[in-house]
Amino acid sequence: MEERELEHLLRQVQEGSVGVEEAMAHLRTAPFEDLGYARVDHHRAIRQGAGEVLFGQGKTAEQIGGIVEALAAKGAYNILITRMNEEKAAALEGRFPMRYDPVPRLAVAYPREIPLVGSVVVASGGTSDIPVCEEAAQTAEALGSQVIRLYDVGVAGLHRLLSKVDTLARARVVIAVAGMEGALASVVGGLVDCPVIAVPTSVGYGANFGGLSALLSMLNGCASGVSVVNIDNGFGAGFLANRINQMKGVEA
Amino acid sequence: MEERELEHLLRQVQEGSVGVEEAMAHLRTAPFEDLGYARVDHHRAIRQGAGEVLFGQGKTAEQIGGIVEALAAKGAYNILITRMNEEKAAALEGRFPMRYDPVPRLAVAYPREIPLVGSVVVASGGTSDIPVCEEAAQTAEALGSQVIRLYDVGVAGLHRLLSKVDTLARARVVIAVAGMEGALASVVGGLVDCPVIAVPTSVGYGANFGGLSALLSMLNGCASGVSVVNIDNGFGAGFLANRINQMKGVEA
Amino acid sequence: MEERELEHLLRQVQEGSVGVEEAMAHLRTAPFEDLGYARVDHHRAIRQGAGEVLFGQGKTAEQIGGIVEALAAKGAYNILITRMNEEKAAALEGRFPMRYDPVPRLAVAYPREIPLVGSVVVASGGTSDIPVCEEAAQTAEALGSQVIRLYDVGVAGLHRLLSKVDTLARARVVIAVAGMEGALASVVGGLVDCPVIAVPTSVGYGANFGGLSALLSMLNGCASGVSVVNIDNGFGAGFLANRINQMKGVEA
Amino acid sequence: MEERELEHLLRQVQEGSVGVEEAMAHLRTAPFEDLGYARVDHHRAIRQGAGEVLFGQGKTAEQIGGIVEALAAKGAYNILITRMNEEKAAALEGRFPMRYDPVPRLAVAYPREIPLVGSVVVASGGTSDIPVCEEAAQTAEALGSQVIRLYDVGVAGLHRLLSKVDTLARARVVIAVAGMEGALASVVGGLVDCPVIAVPTSVGYGANFGGLSALLSMLNGCASGVSVVNIDNGFGAGFLANRINQMKGVEA
Amino acid sequence: MEERELEHLLRQVQEGSVGVEEAMAHLRTAPFEDLGYARVDHHRAIRQGAGEVLFGQGKTAEQIGGIVEALAAKGAYNILITRMNEEKAAALEGRFPMRYDPVPRLAVAYPREIPLVGSVVVASGGTSDIPVCEEAAQTAEALGSQVIRLYDVGVAGLHRLLSKVDTLARARVVIAVAGMEGALASVVGGLVDCPVIAVPTSVGYGANFGGLSALLSMLNGCASGVSVVNIDNGFGAGFLANRINQMKGVEA
Amino acid sequence: MEERELEHLLRQVQEGSVGVEEAMAHLRTAPFEDLGYARVDHHRAIRQGAGEVLFGQGKTAEQIGGIVEALAAKGAYNILITRMNEEKAAALEGRFPMRYDPVPRLAVAYPREIPLVGSVVVASGGTSDIPVCEEAAQTAEALGSQVIRLYDVGVAGLHRLLSKVDTLARARVVIAVAGMEGALASVVGGLVDCPVIAVPTSVGYGANFGGLSALLSMLNGCASGVSVVNIDNGFGAGFLANRINQMKGVEA
Amino acid sequence: MEERELEHLLRQVQEGSVGVEEAMAHLRTAPFEDLGYARVDHHRAIRQGAGEVLFGQGKTAEQIGGIVEALAAKGAYNILITRMNEEKAAALEGRFPMRYDPVPRLAVAYPREIPLVGSVVVASGGTSDIPVCEEAAQTAEALGSQVIRLYDVGVAGLHRLLSKVDTLARARVVIAVAGMEGALASVVGGLVDCPVIAVPTSVGYGANFGGLSALLSMLNGCASGVSVVNIDNGFGAGFLANRINQMKGVEA
Amino acid sequence: MEERELEHLLRQVQEGSVGVEEAMAHLRTAPFEDLGYARVDHHRAIRQGAGEVLFGQGKTAEQIGGIVEALAAKGAYNILITRMNEEKAAALEGRFPMRYDPVPRLAVAYPREIPLVGSVVVASGGTSDIPVCEEAAQTAEALGSQVIRLYDVGVAGLHRLLSKVDTLARARVVIAVAGMEGALASVVGGLVDCPVIAVPTSVGYGANFGGLSALLSMLNGCASGVSVVNIDNGFGAGFLANRINQMKGVEA
Repeated sequence: MEERELEHLLRQVQEGSVGVEEAMAHLRTAPFEDLGYARVDHHRAIRQGAGEVLFGQGKTAEQIGGIVEALAAKGAYNILITRMNEEKAAALEGRFPMRYDPVPRLAVAYPREIPLVGSVVVASGGTSDIPVCEEAAQTAEALGSQVIRLYDVGVAGLHRLLSKVDTLARARVVIAVAGMEGALASVVGGLVDCPVIAVPTSVGYGANFGGLSALLSMLNGCASGVSVVNIDNGFGAGFLANRINQMKGVEA
Repeated sequence: MEERELEHLLRQVQEGSVGVEEAMAHLRTAPFEDLGYARVDHHRAIRQGAGEVLFGQGKTAEQIGGIVEALAAKGAYNILITRMNEEKAAALEGRFPMRYDPVPRLAVAYPREIPLVGSVVVASGGTSDIPVCEEAAQTAEALGSQVIRLYDVGVAGLHRLLSKVDTLARARVVIAVAGMEGALASVVGGLVDCPVIAVPTSVGYGANFGGLSALLSMLNGCASGVSVVNIDNGFGAGFLANRINQMKGVEA
Repeated sequence: MEERELEHLLRQVQEGSVGVEEAMAHLRTAPFEDLGYARVDHHRAIRQGAGEVLFGQGKTAEQIGGIVEALAAKGAYNILITRMNEEKAAALEGRFPMRYDPVPRLAVAYPREIPLVGSVVVASGGTSDIPVCEEAAQTAEALGSQVIRLYDVGVAGLHRLLSKVDTLARARVVIAVAGMEGALASVVGGLVDCPVIAVPTSVGYGANFGGLSALLSMLNGCASGVSVVNIDNGFGAGFLANRINQMKGVEA
Repeated sequence: MEERELEHLLRQVQEGSVGVEEAMAHLRTAPFEDLGYARVDHHRAIRQGAGEVLFGQGKTAEQIGGIVEALAAKGAYNILITRMNEEKAAALEGRFPMRYDPVPRLAVAYPREIPLVGSVVVASGGTSDIPVCEEAAQTAEALGSQVIRLYDVGVAGLHRLLSKVDTLARARVVIAVAGMEGALASVVGGLVDCPVIAVPTSVGYGANFGGLSALLSMLNGCASGVSVVNIDNGFGAGFLANRINQMKGVEA
Repeated sequence: MEERELEHLLRQVQEGSVGVEEAMAHLRTAPFEDLGYARVDHHRAIRQGAGEVLFGQGKTAEQIGGIVEALAAKGAYNILITRMNEEKAAALEGRFPMRYDPVPRLAVAYPREIPLVGSVVVASGGTSDIPVCEEAAQTAEALGSQVIRLYDVGVAGLHRLLSKVDTLARARVVIAVAGMEGALASVVGGLVDCPVIAVPTSVGYGANFGGLSALLSMLNGCASGVSVVNIDNGFGAGFLANRINQMKGVEA
Repeated sequence: MEERELEHLLRQVQEGSVGVEEAMAHLRTAPFEDLGYARVDHHRAIRQGAGEVLFGQGKTAEQIGGIVEALAAKGAYNILITRMNEEKAAALEGRFPMRYDPVPRLAVAYPREIPLVGSVVVASGGTSDIPVCEEAAQTAEALGSQVIRLYDVGVAGLHRLLSKVDTLARARVVIAVAGMEGALASVVGGLVDCPVIAVPTSVGYGANFGGLSALLSMLNGCASGVSVVNIDNGFGAGFLANRINQMKGVEA
Repeated sequence: MEERELEHLLRQVQEGSVGVEEAMAHLRTAPFEDLGYARVDHHRAIRQGAGEVLFGQGKTAEQIGGIVEALAAKGAYNILITRMNEEKAAALEGRFPMRYDPVPRLAVAYPREIPLVGSVVVASGGTSDIPVCEEAAQTAEALGSQVIRLYDVGVAGLHRLLSKVDTLARARVVIAVAGMEGALASVVGGLVDCPVIAVPTSVGYGANFGGLSALLSMLNGCASGVSVVNIDNGFGAGFLANRINQMKGVEA
Repeated sequence: MEERELEHLLRQVQEGSVGVEEAMAHLRTAPFEDLGYARVDHHRAIRQGAGEVLFGQGKTAEQIGGIVEALAAKGAYNILITRMNEEKAAALEGRFPMRYDPVPRLAVAYPREIPLVGSVVVASGGTSDIPVCEEAAQTAEALGSQVIRLYDVGVAGLHRLLSKVDTLARARVVIAVAGMEGALASVVGGLVDCPVIAVPTSVGYGANFGGLSALLSMLNGCASGVSVVNIDNGFGAGFLANRINQMKGVEA
């Protein structure tokens, strides 16, 4: 039941053309869920201020294109398409404006310059983690966060990380991306006092069991202020980092 | 090398009593680690603004007491002692001012009223999760966050959670605590647009494998904006929630 | 917003004492969740027709007693209390009418004779599975199902099971309870054409890993018509079995 | 020993052409197993009323074709072939009447219109779960159940699910299909009072470990009335749902 | 239906007092399962020649005593009771003749001297494995096998094992019992040409995960002629070893 | 040191051309391992009476060919080559006499008719298990055992297995091959009184985790007299079954 | 066959009292294993120079006492007894000279001052890891290594570790002991260029799964020069560290 | 801050053109990390004496080529490139001097003859382990260690290993490489008294779970002096073995 309908019903009650019992029966059976849907949906749209996000994996290029165009028709821009392979990206090229980066397999459709605010640092253990890092970084950027990249600062060469302590110290949020033993999250967590989002990656071999070693390591990290997202979930980290980065100040 | 020593050395260079080469040799071999130690340590002290935290498990009452008193001697207050059983709490009673709650096995030593700001909601699936919830809630409170408790709003009775949507919507951070299937985190994540910290608990039996089911569920949650801490890690969630809650507003 | 309030509001609109805009504002902000709560809750009460269920583990005797009395005050009877140890049962003795069986650690508070209908067969592999079997059987009985027990009919002595084929064939639902290799579910599933609910138990040692062997076995069973509940979850099986057993006939 | 043979033997005893001892020797050595085979087999055919089912995976097109034709020769129709890839389906095209859907990789050979009764709802968390959903839905349909599809009603957008509460409430059985965190089963389980069959899917990545996260989540679900089948086992869920849906009413 | 009944029925047919149709109806509904039961059961009794076995764990002393006496009443002797703790053994003392060894928690009720034949070697890696070894050894002895014990011949001190090569070479079956890395089974398997039964034990700590390390090691062993039983399943190994040891010679 | 050398040395001592100390130094440093090697190796050759076995996987056709020819040059025949794909088999065709079966990927080089003795039954749960079954069966046959195949007698259709009880009862060894829930081993174990070798297969999907479900099921089986080999290890089962089948009779 | 016997035999051959064939038969059947035993055993004694080691867990105080005295009778000293609880230690007190430390549950029987050489650094993440650290440290000391303890230098407070870089740099071997995320091993491995032995501990809770998180982390560490021992295996690390520390210099 | 800058600053202080306070401010804010970086880096270069190592997997041929040339420009030689497939090796051919072995997928760029010292033995269980063995062996050789290869000495044919005891006894370090049950490490560990580095490999099938069986086996090995690296990590073992092999002698 949309607001117009509700208004119309109440006016009928007011005018006497619809009785109270009839109106109540109407209201009682009106799918509140749709109201709920509208309300929540509306809230989402308003509150998030962010473009919509599509999980590209498991959707055809045609499906992706259709959804993007539908969203754009409603005014959406900076629409993120995650986990879209190069083939699908090529198929969509020219259909609508789109920036695509094959490294994180991420596209931004109907890209628009928006002001980038705050400071999200994306730190990574090794060069193999860069696809996940870029998924995080470009997600946060598309949603309006300024991002600083600190790649290849793994803990086995601590000096590389220590030389960037000042950069870390100025961050509002740090995303620590690491595979193998995933120790970066703990070390970074001990160096900064802002929230740290740890992203385990499936980089490695043998007893890393598809990222399990980094995941467990990060969950058990001894530094406070660190939380963890799913293995290789760069998008999730970037999305959450932007959300935290964009926070308004607390009031007493 | 402390600052006094450095000043002394430079003065000697200025005065000509120490040559440049000699000074360089001195500086080169000066243990930068100690400088680093001091600097970082100092930063921690200043930045965190929070009371110190002691992990009580695996420490004797005597050790805990000693550390707390040493911290208090340096001016610390609202010192959190986590995972301390009732026996140790009893042993410490009367030695210094301390508030102890046996449910989360948490103490606040040298408690002091501090203004509580912002809004952290702690939501839980069932009554058995309350010890973990309280560890999270009381940690955040001891660090200065205002906390609202929404207990027993598990997803199997969705109406309980939905009746609190407004409370959730006003939160700056939500901590979702759940054992068994851990679905609460996803459902809450879909209802709010603030950061959600998910805490899997070991509550359950059989194929929950000590909290693994809730942990995996939360890591794989399909709602954006959710991150996860270790199983039963109420303290970690409360600490991080306070950190996010206390954030200053972003500047463009 | 309860119906009375809604009726009152509509009457005010009808009478003109409240304007359409004001009424709409009221309706828009009225917590639909509470309506939802009431509705769903009401439905649960009406539809299930079953007594309430309390998970006794992790609750004190005092808490259990309080909840039971509150439910009874609203007219509930045959209230199931699961996983309650003997100590708590003893503490509650005499406080209200209650039947308690220490084997499945199950109580029925305010017990009342109700007609038992249909046919639920509970079959078990070995005598050690009996506590789980009884939890299932007594749950189904308390909810109104007639239950037939076929214990100790494990597959290593097939003749024991085969001698009961007729009993199995007349069941409306079969609950197959087995630990160790959990093969009973598949074998039973191949013998009957009614729904089979498989309950893996943690009975065994070594590579059964707390019931994992039976759980995986049952999930991979090659007989159609079998589904699985959590390890040792006799209650869940009994509850579901009763629900299926009580089904009304399908209409074309 | 078929009935004709038995009758013939008894007539010979009656006529005196075969003595009692000879008949007993005959009966004693008659392979009761074959009688058993026939009987059970016969019962299966009669009781299930359903077409036969072939697990297509691991069989050649030639083997599948042979078995289907043999079954059809005995009068079977609506013969389900599960997990058959497009290549094999193409190889069989034209050999006999067959409806094939590449999404669930499911075929119905010798399809025949049968009346669809009752109501099975297939609800899914996301669009990637659709192949498993369709395997469930088309299985149930081929066996005679009326199926309603509620796709993409995952818990991260609760309003989508809540807007369908009435549809759920009218179901005789609900199949809840979900990957990732698998929370759909619990949420649905809390909304309805009919049996719910949960199907975990392998959809996801990282710490979902091939469907393990959804599987454990569903097994640990806190809603009563839910049971679980193997990961991606749409067929199993559809088969069982039909069996429950087709149940006759219980008698007191 | 027992043979007498069948004979009676056939005689009635012969005499004409029962018609063919009536006899067929009788035969058709006669519970073949009971025939099956009797037959199989009888076979077990005759073929195994071995005393009965009771799994003592999870049974009360009273239950154990009752079963043992019932078996003895039917003439059984050398009745094995496995996994019975000292408390239960003490409770049964004096009730009937029984030999009890607390190390393997094994009793032989109504013990009787029987000739010990063949040769079963039980080899173990370390002294901590001895309880499992003794369960195997005493089981095989109670069933009639001659057993030679080679304890503490683990692979880290290869000379200890090599000094017993001749003993191993003369065995008809070897039981290799080892915890930790379980390498004994492979090494023994390479030294002998008789069947080797490997028993992983839960002895160890850390990454042995309750015997998993030895179990996997033994399953992956590169020596041919080795098979594995459950972790700590000394009884199973002893039972199978006796069965192999007692085999009659093959005929061409 | 070969025997000739030893004899020569001793003769030199006898003749006085080599002193005792010199001889001792020689003997002390003589690599006893080589003697050991020869001895053990010789024993293997003599005792096993079986052709040699090559694990073909991971070896090139050229390597396999070379080893086979070297063995044949020493008189070996019926040389088993396991896990050799069709490509390698084709590359070796014509080089020497060889029988190859692509189903179990097994070859017998220099095949020779040998008398087949005893009775090994290979029983399987489903048709997908046949490659593993054939690896077991053809291995046992190549080593001299008579093999009876009972395929597709899975426990979900018990009548198929029960109709073959007599065949099972006459076996000297049974190999039970099954994937999915692996229940066949327990059921067979309860029907026979000869040794049963259980082979879990990786056939299945979802929560079978590459054969883990069948493996755990078989290890936890409640029937005595069953042992287990590695997942899909048909060769190991066939080799061991032949070893048991060929046993000479025990002597008192 | 001991050397005396061999010499005697050769002399007999020399003297002609024993023929060549007879001598060969003797030598051929002489149990080479015993020679092997003696040789290897002797080598062990000579080469290791270290006291014997007893794994105290699973042995009675009486057994431990007996073995220690037997070893001492042969001249052994500094005999290590690992994993011996306080009760057993108390039972042995006064029986022979022994130093016992309850923290690592480690005793040194017949202690003797030996020169401590080289430099083994034992570094630990937290205070809860100290029992494992002390097992490592005291083991290395008892075997003759000089040990430096760096406790509580976990990576979450990097300054603590960095302030000890010089100490680490002078070590010949570093033992890195850490639970939880086990990151210490990688960080230390990046700071030093000597061998690093990583010891995961079971310290932690939740998703550390008894030390699995630290174990996997350490195995996947990205620093070269690190190897790992079993969870909580302080003894193993200390033993190996001493072995490496005591190495003689390499020759070109 | 480089040394030149520091010298310049001090000269300015000496000359009076910069005051002490100004210099201190400068030094205080000078990024000590860069000094740290230089120092540590420098130390690494000097101490390790080894060529640099590149992990080739996940880098393009172009990236590898660039890094190698940059290193060579600074004087590096014997630069190891690990896990580089043949395609990339072919792409780099001719660009600079490089030795490539496709078996371990290992290249040495700018190869130079260096003296090989000490003795590292690489022992392997089977021929399939050779790629991992060669990665270990060629790594150690490139870094300056003399390597002896003992391949195919698995424990199922103990004589092969025992015939090489002397070779093992002369090693300064042994690398034991084995898949499947990984028993080689324990057996070798019991035969030698030098450090043993165990490398589990993923060779095997079924319940080896990608190398897990060998890994757990090696971690639980009962021989002292053994430590473990990641599954298939030949490089790590070779690197560590060289480090230990090259050790200088301990001083009292």
